[in-house]
Amino acid sequence: MKNILITGGAGFIGSHLADALLAEGNRVVVYDNLSLGRLSNLDEAMKNQNFSFIKGDIMDRQDFFKVFEENNFDVVFHMAANSDIAKSHKDPDVDFNNTLSTTYNVLLAMKEYNITEIVFASTSAIYGEAEIAVNEDFGPLFPISHYGASKLASEAYISSFCENYGFKAWITRFPNVVGERATHGAIYDFINKLRKNPAELEVLGNGEQVKPYLYVKDLVEAILLVWKSTNDKINYFNLGVESRTKVKEIAQMVIEEMGLNAKIKYTGGERGWVGDVPRFSYCLDKIHRLGWKAKVSSNEAVRKSIRYILERDLCSL
Amino acid sequence: MKNILITGGAGFIGSHLADALLAEGNRVVVYDNLSLGRLSNLDEAMKNQNFSFIKGDIMDRQDFFKVFEENNFDVVFHMAANSDIAKSHKDPDVDFNNTLSTTYNVLLAMKEYNITEIVFASTSAIYGEAEIAVNEDFGPLFPISHYGASKLASEAYISSFCENYGFKAWITRFPNVVGERATHGAIYDFINKLRKNPAELEVLGNGEQVKPYLYVKDLVEAILLVWKSTNDKINYFNLGVESRTKVKEIAQMVIEEMGLNAKIKYTGGERGWVGDVPRFSYCLDKIHRLGWKAKVSSNEAVRKSIRYILERDLCSL
Repeated sequence: MKNILITGGAGFIGSHLADALLAEGNRVVVYDNLSLGRLSNLDEAMKNQNFSFIKGDIMDRQDFFKVFEENNFDVVFHMAANSDIAKSHKDPDVDFNNTLSTTYNVLLAMKEYNITEIVFASTSAIYGEAEIAVNEDFGPLFPISHYGASKLASEAYISSFCENYGFKAWITRFPNVVGERATHGAIYDFINKLRKNPAELEVLGNGEQVKPYLYVKDLVEAILLVWKSTNDKINYFNLGVESRTKVKEIAQMVIEEMGLNAKIKYTGGERGWVGDVPRFSYCLDKIHRLGWKAKVSSNEAVRKSIRYILERDLCSL
Repeated sequence: MKNILITGGAGFIGSHLADALLAEGNRVVVYDNLSLGRLSNLDEAMKNQNFSFIKGDIMDRQDFFKVFEENNFDVVFHMAANSDIAKSHKDPDVDFNNTLSTTYNVLLAMKEYNITEIVFASTSAIYGEAEIAVNEDFGPLFPISHYGASKLASEAYISSFCENYGFKAWITRFPNVVGERATHGAIYDFINKLRKNPAELEVLGNGEQVKPYLYVKDLVEAILLVWKSTNDKINYFNLGVESRTKVKEIAQMVIEEMGLNAKIKYTGGERGWVGDVPRFSYCLDKIHRLGWKAKVSSNEAVRKSIRYILERDLCSL
């Protein structure tokens, strides 16, 4: 039994991690400001006596450090971040504060209270526009979104804290992740647009953008495997699924699942938005060598996500 | 004639850049908080009518943005940073604030005032402990000092600003740089120690740490060449010198130049201090292909630096 802090644990991925870590008998504290997370994501966790939830903001150093003062954590799963990549084009502070500075404060708190193990949610966006199937040692690293920049910056500080204070880190880089509890993204946008206009769906870009969509439960399984089975100073892995899905396929699946017969209108251009990486594929050899492969295909994962949202009626109108 | 801002332009490297850019007939504004820089470094520049100096801190956004409001810059040479790598082991905020956040504020000011060209002082420290002769596309990037982490983080944001707002960047990565106006480092430490005890010199580590020491005037020549002769969205170059110098050689040269007969005592271990990269060498093929090579060898550069310091009596006692 480990004593675990999950930052951003009320969010999409963090809450699934909480469920999985509780199921293994660990004690879990979730710290979340509920800006993107939802308490309802923790409905199951709340029933477990080994679980506690603290509402708070990592940027409030005093409040956040108190959690370390009062708990003797073995490890921190740092999942808190802005997760809406398109958003910070207008205001880069969104990612500088919520994606980078949160990581930095987590590291400072760990240093202060001598907690030396961190599992970190990084991203394929650190690789920028690389169109080849990038492996973990790819360079140069020139991210094109502020989100990617903030995650790369976070990795950089995790690395220097490892060297300076004897930390150990598990850095897992995610592609697009979908499934139950997802909070935004193309699927949401399409459902919302179709509710406003069931006859026509506007899709940003030419619809040819193609990416791997990893199912959240597969992702969580892989994160835990990496954490348990590797033991270097810095362990770093691409996590992903071999198949990919085009944006136009997502649009078609949404129309189909909603039982509509809408026409798709593409705005054109190869990018959906500034900072969007239009085509991406990962090299997954390193994680596959650990004996893990995603069970759910990219298309299936997208469809599960669509059905979950439609069943719960989670979209706004 | 270009209208140029140099942040940190009263510092060691920035002031040499100012001299070189003025000599070419440009208009130069130096913005510096004089925390590490010295006004005396700008003695020559001050005589030039195309030069002006503004004392101010980049972290004071209002004051700093005013400089952009009042000047129509063509390009920003962003040299301001903490330059004492060993210092932030105790307090990581030193580099987070002075090396990363300053870069981020420069980028925000440029975005606000639609200045799109930046020349950036990066570092070999982004490569971490890599012992091979790393080229510019080396990965993974796991810096071991907070300084290296902050410079990598800076590169990451420069990259995302390039994509998001049409910036163009010239990223030049430096090894150890020495020469006139250097403000700290092993040479200073050795001279100070020998003034206290001329009979014995304590050297941190085993003295076998070996690195290229680039002469500052060679460096400035290379920065300007990169800026003038490359034109990609992000232009990135290792700058360096092919020869290297061992720490024990620096110690011997200092003793010799001071006319002493001191015994050297090594504290042992392969690292001088936490975050120190004990052995480093660069691949310089990319900058050599532009037709540039350092004129001054690593040993000569070190000796020039020692003589400058001793002549000016710049060390404290």
